[in-house]
Amino acid sequence: MPSSALAVLAGSLPQLALSTDPGDLEHYGRDWTRRWTPAPLAIARPADIGEVQAIVRWALAERVALVPSGGRTGLSGGAVAAHGELVVSFERMNRVLDFDPADRTLTVQPGLPLERLQQAAAGHGLLYPVDFAARGSCTIGGNIATNAGGIRVIRYGNTREWIAGVKVVTGTGELLDLNRGLIKNSSGYDLRHLMIGSEGTLGLVVEARVRLTDPPPASSVMLLALPAMDALMQVFDVCRRRLALGAFEFFTDRALHHVLAHGAQRPFEETAPFYVVAEFDAADEAQQAAALAVFEQCLEHGWVTDGAISQSAAQAAALWRLREGITESLAAHRPYKNDIAVRIGAIPAFMHQMQAIFAREYPAFDVVWFGHIGDGNLHINVLKPADLADAAFIEQCEHVTRLLSETLQACGGSISAEHGIGLVKKKYLAGTRSPAEIEVMRGIKRVLDPAGLLNPGKVFDTP
Amino acid sequence: MPSSALAVLAGSLPQLALSTDPGDLEHYGRDWTRRWTPAPLAIARPADIGEVQAIVRWALAERVALVPSGGRTGLSGGAVAAHGELVVSFERMNRVLDFDPADRTLTVQPGLPLERLQQAAAGHGLLYPVDFAARGSCTIGGNIATNAGGIRVIRYGNTREWIAGVKVVTGTGELLDLNRGLIKNSSGYDLRHLMIGSEGTLGLVVEARVRLTDPPPASSVMLLALPAMDALMQVFDVCRRRLALGAFEFFTDRALHHVLAHGAQRPFEETAPFYVVAEFDAADEAQQAAALAVFEQCLEHGWVTDGAISQSAAQAAALWRLREGITESLAAHRPYKNDIAVRIGAIPAFMHQMQAIFAREYPAFDVVWFGHIGDGNLHINVLKPADLADAAFIEQCEHVTRLLSETLQACGGSISAEHGIGLVKKKYLAGTRSPAEIEVMRGIKRVLDPAGLLNPGKVFDTP
Repeated sequence: MPSSALAVLAGSLPQLALSTDPGDLEHYGRDWTRRWTPAPLAIARPADIGEVQAIVRWALAERVALVPSGGRTGLSGGAVAAHGELVVSFERMNRVLDFDPADRTLTVQPGLPLERLQQAAAGHGLLYPVDFAARGSCTIGGNIATNAGGIRVIRYGNTREWIAGVKVVTGTGELLDLNRGLIKNSSGYDLRHLMIGSEGTLGLVVEARVRLTDPPPASSVMLLALPAMDALMQVFDVCRRRLALGAFEFFTDRALHHVLAHGAQRPFEETAPFYVVAEFDAADEAQQAAALAVFEQCLEHGWVTDGAISQSAAQAAALWRLREGITESLAAHRPYKNDIAVRIGAIPAFMHQMQAIFAREYPAFDVVWFGHIGDGNLHINVLKPADLADAAFIEQCEHVTRLLSETLQACGGSISAEHGIGLVKKKYLAGTRSPAEIEVMRGIKRVLDPAGLLNPGKVFDTP
Repeated sequence: MPSSALAVLAGSLPQLALSTDPGDLEHYGRDWTRRWTPAPLAIARPADIGEVQAIVRWALAERVALVPSGGRTGLSGGAVAAHGELVVSFERMNRVLDFDPADRTLTVQPGLPLERLQQAAAGHGLLYPVDFAARGSCTIGGNIATNAGGIRVIRYGNTREWIAGVKVVTGTGELLDLNRGLIKNSSGYDLRHLMIGSEGTLGLVVEARVRLTDPPPASSVMLLALPAMDALMQVFDVCRRRLALGAFEFFTDRALHHVLAHGAQRPFEETAPFYVVAEFDAADEAQQAAALAVFEQCLEHGWVTDGAISQSAAQAAALWRLREGITESLAAHRPYKNDIAVRIGAIPAFMHQMQAIFAREYPAFDVVWFGHIGDGNLHINVLKPADLADAAFIEQCEHVTRLLSETLQACGGSISAEHGIGLVKKKYLAGTRSPAEIEVMRGIKRVLDPAGLLNPGKVFDTP
């Protein structure tokens, strides 16, 4: 049936870019996770919304599942096609369609890479503020599908906050034009927000209108060395009160170790167990003086043991590299990743519990953590020892994830802060969402995708 | 059946505050609209979440519809109970439950008036920034149900942006604890945002965790007189570029006329057809000088003919009163209200079309408009001539609303920016939302309220 179905598609949409080349199947069939073997039916690369709708109607008639595909930089398997699905790649729908100066919005196609969106905004003297390390490869469609966060959430929020409108094609082939750029719109349910973060399971994002803002004032970056985990929240509290924060990130000595091994410059003579990178507005002398005062206050209380404040853009970039280079520096070690969130107030207790779990369960593993303290978001990367088999390694990590999930459930946290659930965290969803919530989600899925064709098996299983 | 059903409720929940007093039925059975005759079955005033759940389970068993009730300041009939519904008033659930200093959130019950929420935030040195004239009477539960906007949206967004978590009881009596204060949470569909703005048709808001922020810097208020409608967008553009705007409101000479008749002080000797009230950060001399420069630039271009900048808090309050006093000054005239939104870029063309419709269809009516230009939100108040019968007046206004709705549909606008759809705008929903969207909304309603008990007939009819 699949190959005859494909013939039907090719016949009804002769102009559609369609590939069954084995290299393409492998390339488009997976994301940055490596646990699944890609096995899509074929790769379709539609050129416009009409082709997307035609693909969905074909899928409905032929009962073929669809996997939407952006930059495939996801870390949860949300873009994996391992069961004969048709991959719908948006890479040909990658243009900026319009800039509206009065509304300060860009209308874009889903396959536009984040970095090109940022550049288009800058070209109009404005800022698209969502930002993270995968900016060059990830696409705005994927960002919307996972409600991507990143390093500026503390000031600007997640992707959700910047989507003024979104067009989606549902599982019945309907095109919904949601919110259309309005700032105020109390006219029925906000389906735009329902789509954002739904990981392609409710609709395919085919266009978005993103809001832009003023560029931020001049900023500086401060790197602080902390003697103990407990100092983190105290340093955060002081920084938040006295500085205009644009970012507040932390990482551990293990993270620093890997970044340095990857070529970054050692910031301080002595190592410390924890580090903070804080970016703050430094447009005038008062703001610069405040940063110095914050540093001195922290030093006085013993919350930091060393520090540096950037005096140039180059220095700021060097300090940022210590944080932003972590993920890349770990890639060769095939890390198992957790991406969890708790309320800020719950961080100290949670981190102690987490540390106890790691000490007990991972005595021999290299565990690297870092994250966005100002958003309550911690990233944990467990590195695979070279002599351990993949399966045994993942089994041990999954065991710890179960323990983490229970700890998160007890404190109201989330098993995925910004990567999404996809395939990787599906079995832990019930620790974050109640059975009643999951039932509601299943019900909503049935409304928007009654045949269960859109990214099936992602987020939750549909019976 | 109804009265026996009530006996069942009273019997199973003997401690529940329940009233069938005719004065209560009248008082709690309606909102600020006056088109419907209240006719609820009874008024329940639960004291906690458990009682709300028990009420829903009873309603399910007895097939009694429920109308949630906050401050009943709504202008769309969303809280009207005219068909034997049980009104569920949250006025006994009106407390602040918790303040979390690390997360900077207040956890509150739904019946808490907005003004008391603002005061509680101020008591902790923080700001809850959503604000509008009904602050003393409206409640946070109602604000969430309509995604209330108001006068600071240009800087702070709508209610939606400030809800870090919400507990709702669905139409099956399930308690959903949605998002729980997390900043990042990409773990399945964001049902919190689905609930916000759903006007009590998907769930009853029984608790909310609201986010607070830093108090704004010192500000001043500028009143500008404009010679023509076309100058509005030019003034807005200059103000937005050069000032840090906290509000940008406009009103017409007819609005000023009524506010002055209601006791406000005339600002300028000469009247102008349009006025703008702009609030801007004025923490230092540079910001104050920028405001003066903006005024001079506008004067030079002929976009304004007169202006005043507040030099004290009292002067700022007096200027604000010219805008904030409008609704109250019109109340005695029983105005018919439109509350529409378009994209900012669509304002000029839309306002011309709207003006043409008014000139043609309302030759003899006093039409007062004002609104939030920075949000694309216009409020139109049509005053009933004393000698015209209610029915004839409303018929003529509804005719114009149909024309407005068609114009809005053509330009992608919304029939309700911030009041909600309720009963009043239900027949125009199809001008703002497509048939496919409305079908999806109906499907979602069936998932969360399969028996159709929650605020039935509001937003849309359920077959």
